[in-house]
Amino acid sequence: MTALTSTEWSLAARPVGMPKLSDFQMKTIDIAPPGAGEIQVKNEWMSVDPYMRGRMQDRESYVPPFQIGETMQGGAVGRVTVSNHPDYKEGDLVSSMAGWRTAWVGKPEMAMAQKLPEVGLPESAFLGVAGMPGLTAYAGLLRVAELKEGDTVFVSGAAGAVGSTVVQIAKIKGCSPVVGSCGSDEKVKFLIEECRYDAAFNYKTDTDYLAKVRELCPKGVDCYFDNVGGNLTDAVFANLAQFARVSICGMISQYNLQKPEMGPRASYMMLLIRQVSAQGFLVPQFGGKFPQGIQQMAKWFNEGKLTYREDIVDGLENTPEAFIRMLKGENRGKQLVRVS
Amino acid sequence: MTALTSTEWSLAARPVGMPKLSDFQMKTIDIAPPGAGEIQVKNEWMSVDPYMRGRMQDRESYVPPFQIGETMQGGAVGRVTVSNHPDYKEGDLVSSMAGWRTAWVGKPEMAMAQKLPEVGLPESAFLGVAGMPGLTAYAGLLRVAELKEGDTVFVSGAAGAVGSTVVQIAKIKGCSPVVGSCGSDEKVKFLIEECRYDAAFNYKTDTDYLAKVRELCPKGVDCYFDNVGGNLTDAVFANLAQFARVSICGMISQYNLQKPEMGPRASYMMLLIRQVSAQGFLVPQFGGKFPQGIQQMAKWFNEGKLTYREDIVDGLENTPEAFIRMLKGENRGKQLVRVS
Repeated sequence: MTALTSTEWSLAARPVGMPKLSDFQMKTIDIAPPGAGEIQVKNEWMSVDPYMRGRMQDRESYVPPFQIGETMQGGAVGRVTVSNHPDYKEGDLVSSMAGWRTAWVGKPEMAMAQKLPEVGLPESAFLGVAGMPGLTAYAGLLRVAELKEGDTVFVSGAAGAVGSTVVQIAKIKGCSPVVGSCGSDEKVKFLIEECRYDAAFNYKTDTDYLAKVRELCPKGVDCYFDNVGGNLTDAVFANLAQFARVSICGMISQYNLQKPEMGPRASYMMLLIRQVSAQGFLVPQFGGKFPQGIQQMAKWFNEGKLTYREDIVDGLENTPEAFIRMLKGENRGKQLVRVS
Repeated sequence: MTALTSTEWSLAARPVGMPKLSDFQMKTIDIAPPGAGEIQVKNEWMSVDPYMRGRMQDRESYVPPFQIGETMQGGAVGRVTVSNHPDYKEGDLVSSMAGWRTAWVGKPEMAMAQKLPEVGLPESAFLGVAGMPGLTAYAGLLRVAELKEGDTVFVSGAAGAVGSTVVQIAKIKGCSPVVGSCGSDEKVKFLIEECRYDAAFNYKTDTDYLAKVRELCPKGVDCYFDNVGGNLTDAVFANLAQFARVSICGMISQYNLQKPEMGPRASYMMLLIRQVSAQGFLVPQFGGKFPQGIQQMAKWFNEGKLTYREDIVDGLENTPEAFIRMLKGENRGKQLVRVS
């Protein structure tokens, strides 16, 4: 029997604005051997994601806040080391929400564990194209925005794990142009040369968003995949086509604000003027469609239609750095931590 | 052959803020006899509606702006007096967009004319429960918001022609509570005693909207039918239930503003936090469903399940007064003008 200790991260303090390393604390604890119906899992990969920043605030978001001193949660992939559960055996690959730690013991359903299929994908892909970000892109485009061939698609936060998958699905589905915004010239290059975006701009230097979106989406935006919110979203809304559909996936521009921001009511009014549908969504609401989405993503990957890029930080002890790096937009591709 | 003149209203000037009588001008013109494929119609009723205020601005809305000196448009019901069109005969009842005038001549499709069925409804009902406002309520609840039995429904602008129909359809469909906001204590009484609202409040005197909506919709709002926008909408958004649906039908709070207003971005964020769908819509987008909607509304009316109230101003010459009265919220029931 292995790994009866786990090294785990919790909040030392609630971050104010951009999190800093001193907001986090690490400890190593003993974990109990698995009881009846429980499994023991050694994590191999974990994901750091923008939504985690929301859980660090003590206010309502779509998931409950993390508590100071309690081990945080997040997507992780690992191998079963001991199983007292009939559906799992030693060596099975599982995804779970028991990240920010090296190992865990418990009932699979308590950790939202899911046994992963052998579909020709590398393990870490289950935190990327075949995991939460990939399935977010899949559900947000195909179920929420009801993507149609020929749609003009705009993606904010285009270089992230979700955005760089959104564009590929949109191209597979025959959309054009697919346009993205991101936070550096290097990312603009990445979007166009590697991710197949038709056009992209750096929102930090090209600040006349209204003109830029109009220039790059001359027929108006039919489908807006929003990861960002704020001023950029106002500009996209002003350029929405009639009967446009907005998939609201995230609002990274708002997560670190210390007080709530005001914006023009004109954006809400555009929903009426252009008869637009806007929908906020989270992948779990499409939970029942997970296996179908994973199979589809694996199929596209194995056919060479879908690629991805990872940005790997080694060692669980470096998770807060990886998290802050991702929040600052310094990652190139899906930000992962190789746990061991 | 009758009515070869028409008395018509146009804008004398673009209104600034609340329109005044001097913004309008009336003239009587000769109209040509009907040519091939044309009909001549004498209007009997016309409707004044909030959306017309938008068309008086020289800026984009969902319909093109009225031009100074050109006869305005709007919903009207009249009788065919002469027909050179095979589908129409003298005496047929037709709805059209050729309001703000006593008579018109032209191809039916140019006036968006529609021959009205004999379904046991009074003529004026085709401008109310079986016309644009009624079908707006019908489509907004059943097609846009996908109303479900047991939903908590909130209606802003609850005493208007649309709002007072929304509540009745919601009650027929088993929703509870159905709560409305309106602009006077007398209207609150009307909403509860005549319109079957479960609760209502006067937004001019009960100004803690957040607390009021929470009090009256303790389980959260599942379906929000928005005619108003602005601060009240922010409060409803803060009280939306998970998976709520918002039908955006109008934004009367914004139409008379002389400069665009700012509002909290938190409202847009609620779409994400509570996984909400919000959709702006206009009845014409459901055009193909019109006959079905009219039949359903007539059925409910004839079964005594659907009632309505009209506020009638007599004489085309008094149309601007009727319009301003409606914008100020002084009407009780659907504001109509009896043309002759």
